[in-house]
Amino acid sequence: MDVLHEAIRERGSVVSDHILKVDNFLNHQVDTQLMTMIGKEFAKRFQGQSVTKVLTLESSGIAPSFMAANTLNVPLVFARKKKALTGSEDVYTSRVYSYTKQELNQVIVSKEYLAEGDRVLIIDDFLAHGNAALGLTEVVEEAGATVVGVGAVIEKAFQEGRMQLEMEGYQVESLARIESLSNGEVTFVDEVVTNK
Amino acid sequence: MDVLHEAIRERGSVVSDHILKVDNFLNHQVDTQLMTMIGKEFAKRFQGQSVTKVLTLESSGIAPSFMAANTLNVPLVFARKKKALTGSEDVYTSRVYSYTKQELNQVIVSKEYLAEGDRVLIIDDFLAHGNAALGLTEVVEEAGATVVGVGAVIEKAFQEGRMQLEMEGYQVESLARIESLSNGEVTFVDEVVTNK
Repeated sequence: MDVLHEAIRERGSVVSDHILKVDNFLNHQVDTQLMTMIGKEFAKRFQGQSVTKVLTLESSGIAPSFMAANTLNVPLVFARKKKALTGSEDVYTSRVYSYTKQELNQVIVSKEYLAEGDRVLIIDDFLAHGNAALGLTEVVEEAGATVVGVGAVIEKAFQEGRMQLEMEGYQVESLARIESLSNGEVTFVDEVVTNK
Repeated sequence: MDVLHEAIRERGSVVSDHILKVDNFLNHQVDTQLMTMIGKEFAKRFQGQSVTKVLTLESSGIAPSFMAANTLNVPLVFARKKKALTGSEDVYTSRVYSYTKQELNQVIVSKEYLAEGDRVLIIDDFLAHGNAALGLTEVVEEAGATVVGVGAVIEKAFQEGRMQLEMEGYQVESLARIESLSNGEVTFVDEVVTNK
């Protein structure tokens, strides 16, 4: 997705060999025009698969999945990392370790909003080690629902997230695949030039 | 806003005299079509005021403010409750006590995304005691920027949030104003019938 590659290159910054900061347009300040294009692209890639719910994880997943759910005309559910106090309800839960934040989070979804028969598209901002996405697939399976696939805005293709998800049989669609963040530079997968 | 009143009545549930649960369409499962109408209504109420940023608080503020920022064609910034590990940056902060969650949170915004000269529209899901909104106004003022106004999807008009904000001179726009949650029923402000 050219417009996303451009945003990453011009408005992102490489913090280290494994950390890309995109809080200019994705996970602190949000470019809602770009998020709209991203949401529509996800919808396009999973159209015809009878998606009934889009599922993401608070907070950074909400903006990029908003227009996907809107375009597919299905509800968006964002999993919580903490149980709400107003909720006495039953929940599905799994546990997710965040390498970036170095903390163990829960993934919590009320049983009211995922049911057997649901066909769920999972969307998140980043796909790296795959832990968040796998945590989300666990709650979907716990509900007896079906994971239609996993969409990520940015994939760190040098980490094992995609492999983990594909091993479980899930379709993975990333809108920008990063091959490397070495030497302070972003290299996308489709830009790798091999000189043999 | 009739469609919102209808959603609150039909899909919300009264948990107690002061807690309304709207996780069916607003803060867990999200009705993005309704959020689109809500965002456009906020944009309309603050149009002509040269808004340069929409500011909200993660996570529940993101969905209702997304289309407001999109319609006004300005960036959306969501304040974080915890400092990100990828961020070594300078931040504006304030502290907010959440009565609903019974916890003290920080409100954190990177100095990169609020500046002197910004005209900021603050949007949140609920206006109750006004603490979250006041915390957001504090970071805006710390940045030397201007608060254009505060928009809330649902106002608990029986609590003091509006009064607190109006005392500070801020324009407050709520799309649904709840007079009472007594006896397990929602009564809106404009529906209060006085029989004298």
